[in-house]
Amino acid sequence: MAIRCTVLGAGSWGTTVAHLLAHNTPTVLWARDPEVAAEVDEKATNERYLPGAELHPSLRATDDMAAAVASADLLVVGVPSHGFRQAIVDARDDLRPWVPVISLAKGLEQGTRLRMTQIIDQELPGHPYGMLTGPNLAREILAGEAAASVLAMADETISEQLQDLFCSGLFRVYTNPDVVGCEIAGSLKNVIAIASGMADGLGTGDNTRAAVITRGLAEMARLGTAMGGHTVTFGGLAGLGDLLATCMSRQSRNRHVGEQLGRGRTLDEIVTEMHMVAEGVKSTPVVKAMAAEHGIEMPIVDEVHAVLYEGRSAKDAYQGLLNRAHVAEMHGIGSRSR
Amino acid sequence: MAIRCTVLGAGSWGTTVAHLLAHNTPTVLWARDPEVAAEVDEKATNERYLPGAELHPSLRATDDMAAAVASADLLVVGVPSHGFRQAIVDARDDLRPWVPVISLAKGLEQGTRLRMTQIIDQELPGHPYGMLTGPNLAREILAGEAAASVLAMADETISEQLQDLFCSGLFRVYTNPDVVGCEIAGSLKNVIAIASGMADGLGTGDNTRAAVITRGLAEMARLGTAMGGHTVTFGGLAGLGDLLATCMSRQSRNRHVGEQLGRGRTLDEIVTEMHMVAEGVKSTPVVKAMAAEHGIEMPIVDEVHAVLYEGRSAKDAYQGLLNRAHVAEMHGIGSRSR
Repeated sequence: MAIRCTVLGAGSWGTTVAHLLAHNTPTVLWARDPEVAAEVDEKATNERYLPGAELHPSLRATDDMAAAVASADLLVVGVPSHGFRQAIVDARDDLRPWVPVISLAKGLEQGTRLRMTQIIDQELPGHPYGMLTGPNLAREILAGEAAASVLAMADETISEQLQDLFCSGLFRVYTNPDVVGCEIAGSLKNVIAIASGMADGLGTGDNTRAAVITRGLAEMARLGTAMGGHTVTFGGLAGLGDLLATCMSRQSRNRHVGEQLGRGRTLDEIVTEMHMVAEGVKSTPVVKAMAAEHGIEMPIVDEVHAVLYEGRSAKDAYQGLLNRAHVAEMHGIGSRSR
Repeated sequence: MAIRCTVLGAGSWGTTVAHLLAHNTPTVLWARDPEVAAEVDEKATNERYLPGAELHPSLRATDDMAAAVASADLLVVGVPSHGFRQAIVDARDDLRPWVPVISLAKGLEQGTRLRMTQIIDQELPGHPYGMLTGPNLAREILAGEAAASVLAMADETISEQLQDLFCSGLFRVYTNPDVVGCEIAGSLKNVIAIASGMADGLGTGDNTRAAVITRGLAEMARLGTAMGGHTVTFGGLAGLGDLLATCMSRQSRNRHVGEQLGRGRTLDEIVTEMHMVAEGVKSTPVVKAMAAEHGIEMPIVDEVHAVLYEGRSAKDAYQGLLNRAHVAEMHGIGSRSR
């Protein structure tokens, strides 16, 4: 019997995942905007968020949340972190029991600092939950390029059943039971991408960029493991893979913000020009607060914070990173005693 | 009392490390070629290997091995893997006992498949040994750009004393007691860099490149931990850091070979044009044999081998990687039971 899928949120990534699912199973995309819903349903395009892309013809779309949710055997939530809780609350009354709920959102709830799957568990107790994450640039996947992703769920029996639903063409999905690690990695990588972009803007070489990414990943792992994630997750697609794609991509807003800061522009100038805020700009103070709470040193996060909010120049920030006391490389990571 | 340093080998990296040491302590560089030795000693340049670079004025150089070695309190060996054993044998009679010996070479001895520190231990028993490794492009470091490196030694008391000798300006050194992991990582990364270069040559996007590097690192960690290395090393500067610098750098010969293969050229054509062989081309069959010996799956290494030596196209190799059965992401890595 087919597993019917519903995806909430018709932004670029929600639409892309719905398109991938439609290759394998009956899939409905819920769009808040009736025009977007009609366009996806009738023309198999979403020109606002994915200009030029052709979506799978069997993908259905609607702006009727109740109708979209009622038939779902799997609910995928592609709404950004600030609207995530409300979308789930809106879906709750029509969702059948035991239906797994998968988050596509990377970020933490402002104020509560909760991860998205913690919100699912609060609002939909009893539903198995998980997250699809990894180095996934929507445009490249729609163009049919090879990509790999991670389905993070504690219950491996369910995740192995869902794995095949998401795989399509050259898009591959791996399973990982470490939900906490995958979610923390997704939230932290944007801050490190700003630091990496700063190195680009300062015109430094490949050594420096490699060192920033590597040491940045170590910071992510230190905080992530303190919060209950597993070390190996940070070296995998949800950690390193996503971090790399973000740091290398010309499309990344976070990398772009860092690059402009590296060139000596102010945050205000950059944000005004972008017409939107990069996720990492918002999450840097949250991550800094969490690091303090767990007693974790995160010098790269501290320097990004200083450049964003304390008037420090990117050049001085890089000097600051290098003047730290010499230490053993893996200080504070993993379980090996040193 | 000053620790006097001797560096064997006046290639680009040996000369650069000698230049860094000369900032902190009396240092002698041994060059096989008397003209190179005289040029470094008298003019503080090495135009053959580091055109345009100005070396530290206190750096001395000689072609007299016995004189260079006799005064050493620390011996650094910057000779490539194929001449490494002979250089140590030549130095042996003049080297005082207990003097630490640090390898700069990345690679395995052909035939024996031994790591460089295993050769040190065979030929100079009783001498503490280690390796300096990481994302280090000589030209960038000479230009004074920020970079970070790893000093791998089992004895952390000695490595902490040596750490400060290597640090200079924006060049930082971390310690790591996992010598095996650092050496294996240095040998394997060139093979993965060929695979990453193939993706570049095929014109794939950032998703694909991020996934290849991430999955490639996982292969490195699988073999490396089976051979006695620690998982965390592969996520650090000697593993990930060096791999990233190699995969991103336009200067990397291994990445270049992969890129040309991705564009459909044959290995013969590429090698003829380069006038030198990239290290990864030689080490791919060695790594494949070691993987078989340890019963480790290394699909990226297998595909690189097939393209280099079995007439497979880069395009087919990429398809082959993606058609593998879906698996749990961290299958075979680390100590967590799955």
